[in-house]
Amino acid sequence: MSSMEFWGVEVKAGQPLKVEPKDFYMIHLSQAALGESSKKGNESVPLFLKFDEKKLVLGTLSPENIPQLSFDLVFEREFELSHNWKNGSVFFCGYQAAIPENDSDQEIKLNK
Amino acid sequence: MSSMEFWGVEVKAGQPLKVEPKDFYMIHLSQAALGESSKKGNESVPLFLKFDEKKLVLGTLSPENIPQLSFDLVFEREFELSHNWKNGSVFFCGYQAAIPENDSDQEIKLNK
Amino acid sequence: MSSMEFWGVEVKAGQPLKVEPKDFYMIHLSQAALGESSKKGNESVPLFLKFDEKKLVLGTLSPENIPQLSFDLVFEREFELSHNWKNGSVFFCGYQAAIPENDSDQEIKLNK
Amino acid sequence: MSSMEFWGVEVKAGQPLKVEPKDFYMIHLSQAALGESSKKGNESVPLFLKFDEKKLVLGTLSPENIPQLSFDLVFEREFELSHNWKNGSVFFCGYQAAIPENDSDQEIKLNK
Amino acid sequence: MSSMEFWGVEVKAGQPLKVEPKDFYMIHLSQAALGESSKKGNESVPLFLKFDEKKLVLGTLSPENIPQLSFDLVFEREFELSHNWKNGSVFFCGYQAAIPENDSDQEIKLNK
Repeated sequence: MSSMEFWGVEVKAGQPLKVEPKDFYMIHLSQAALGESSKKGNESVPLFLKFDEKKLVLGTLSPENIPQLSFDLVFEREFELSHNWKNGSVFFCGYQAAIPENDSDQEIKLNK
Repeated sequence: MSSMEFWGVEVKAGQPLKVEPKDFYMIHLSQAALGESSKKGNESVPLFLKFDEKKLVLGTLSPENIPQLSFDLVFEREFELSHNWKNGSVFFCGYQAAIPENDSDQEIKLNK
Repeated sequence: MSSMEFWGVEVKAGQPLKVEPKDFYMIHLSQAALGESSKKGNESVPLFLKFDEKKLVLGTLSPENIPQLSFDLVFEREFELSHNWKNGSVFFCGYQAAIPENDSDQEIKLNK
Repeated sequence: MSSMEFWGVEVKAGQPLKVEPKDFYMIHLSQAALGESSKKGNESVPLFLKFDEKKLVLGTLSPENIPQLSFDLVFEREFELSHNWKNGSVFFCGYQAAIPENDSDQEIKLNK
Repeated sequence: MSSMEFWGVEVKAGQPLKVEPKDFYMIHLSQAALGESSKKGNESVPLFLKFDEKKLVLGTLSPENIPQLSFDLVFEREFELSHNWKNGSVFFCGYQAAIPENDSDQEIKLNK
C-alpha cells in the first residue's frame, strides 16, 4: 500500500464538514479553491476551521481576486471545515500520509 | 536510475487528459500555467480534476491577473485534468518520485 | 503519540502572544490570516515577531487585498507574535513537529 | 562536501540557456524574478522550458503586477530556459541537491 | 542541540549584509518582508543577492501591492543581501538547519 494518497473534499455553504484522518494517517491540507459560480462578485468568503473546540479563520477567498489559497497544514485527528459562500462550494485538497513511526523506530534502534 | 524526475503535460481546451503514474512512482503536481495566447482577456479559467469518480475544482486562472498557480498535491494512481479555456493550453508540471517503501523497510528492521 | 500535530492561535490587537514550543518539539509557522471584521478597509496590518530580543516584521496584511500570508518558518524556543489591527484578530497556524534526534541517532550509528 | 548548494542563473532575452545538472545531483528550481529595468510596463513575459523535446510555459511575469514567481520543480537532466522580455534579464534560482541513493541503499538493506 | 533554528536579519537601505552560515549548518531563506514605513508609495524595491561573485535579483517588493515574498533557497556558504529602499528596512527570515551527513552516513552503511 502506498504511504501517500490524494485527498480532496467539497464543502457546501452552510454545511460544515467533519474530517477524520484514517488510523495511522495524517491529512496534509494543501489548498482551498472556490468552485464554479454563475455569479461573479467581489464578496469575501472566510474559511473556518474548528479543531479542539477552537474556531480559527484559515483565510479569505474572493471570486474575482483570490479564487484560491495555499496551505501547509497537518491534521492528526478530527477537524471541521466550513464557509458561508452563497454562490457555490469550496474545494479543499491535499494528501494523506502515513504517520512516520519515529518513536517505536527509535526505541528499536536504542535497544539494539 | 534517479528517484525524482521532472514531469510536465500540456492540456488543451476541451480535451481532458488522463494521467497514470508509472509503477512504484507517484506524481507531485506543483503548478499550472496558462499558455501563450494572442488574445488577452480577463476571463476566468477554472481547472478541473477528476479522481476516483469525484470532480473537484483545483483553482481558477485568468490571463491578466492570475496566469499561474502553485499546488502541493500528490497522485498515486490515475487522475484526469481538464479546462475549457478557449484561447490556449494549460501547462501542468511537477515531478514524479519513487514511492518510499516504508512498510517493507520497517518490517525488515523489525525482523532483524 | 503522533510526531506532527496541528497548531493554531488567535492573536488579538495590542495583545502580544508569547508562544513556547513543547519540550522536544518545534513549531512550524505556516500562515497568518486576518479574522472576520465588520469593517472592510484598505489599511495595512504589519505582523511583528520578537525572537531573542530582536523585533522583525513578518509581513503586512490588508483586509481587501492581502487577507492572508504563507510562511515557512520554524521556532525551537520562545517567540512572540503581535499586531495592531484595530478591527479584529489575526490567526496564526502551522504544526508542531518532534525534533529529529539527529545527533544522538548518529552517535549510536557511529558506535555500532 | 555539502549535499545542498545554492544555484542561480541569469537568462537574457532571446538567449535560451541550457542547464545540465552535475553528476549525481538534481536541480531544484525554486523561483524566477524579473531583473531591473529602466522602463516600467505592463507587458506579459512568458517563461519557457524545453525538456525532452517538449516546450512548456512555466508561467508569465509582468513588471508591475507579477515581478516574480515560485516553483517547486526538479530536473535530473538537461533542460533549457528562455524568455523574450525586451527590457531586461530573468533570474532563476534554486538549489542543487545530491540525488538520494535510494535504490542501491535499499538493495543493500534487502540483501543483508 | 536542536538541528533547526529560526534565523532572521534586518537589512537597511544601502547597507549590504554579508551572511555566513555556522559551521555544518546551511541557511534556508524563506521570505523577505518590507518593514514599517511612514510613507506609503508604489515604488519598486528590488532585492539583490551576491553569491560567488554573481549578482542576482531575488525579487521586487512594493509597499502597497507586494509587501512580502516567499523563497525556497538554501545557502551553504557566504552570501550578501542588499536593497535600496529609501523608506525602511527589509527583513529576511528562514531557518538554519544542520547539514545532513549523507556521505559519511552512507559509507558506514556500505562498510557494514
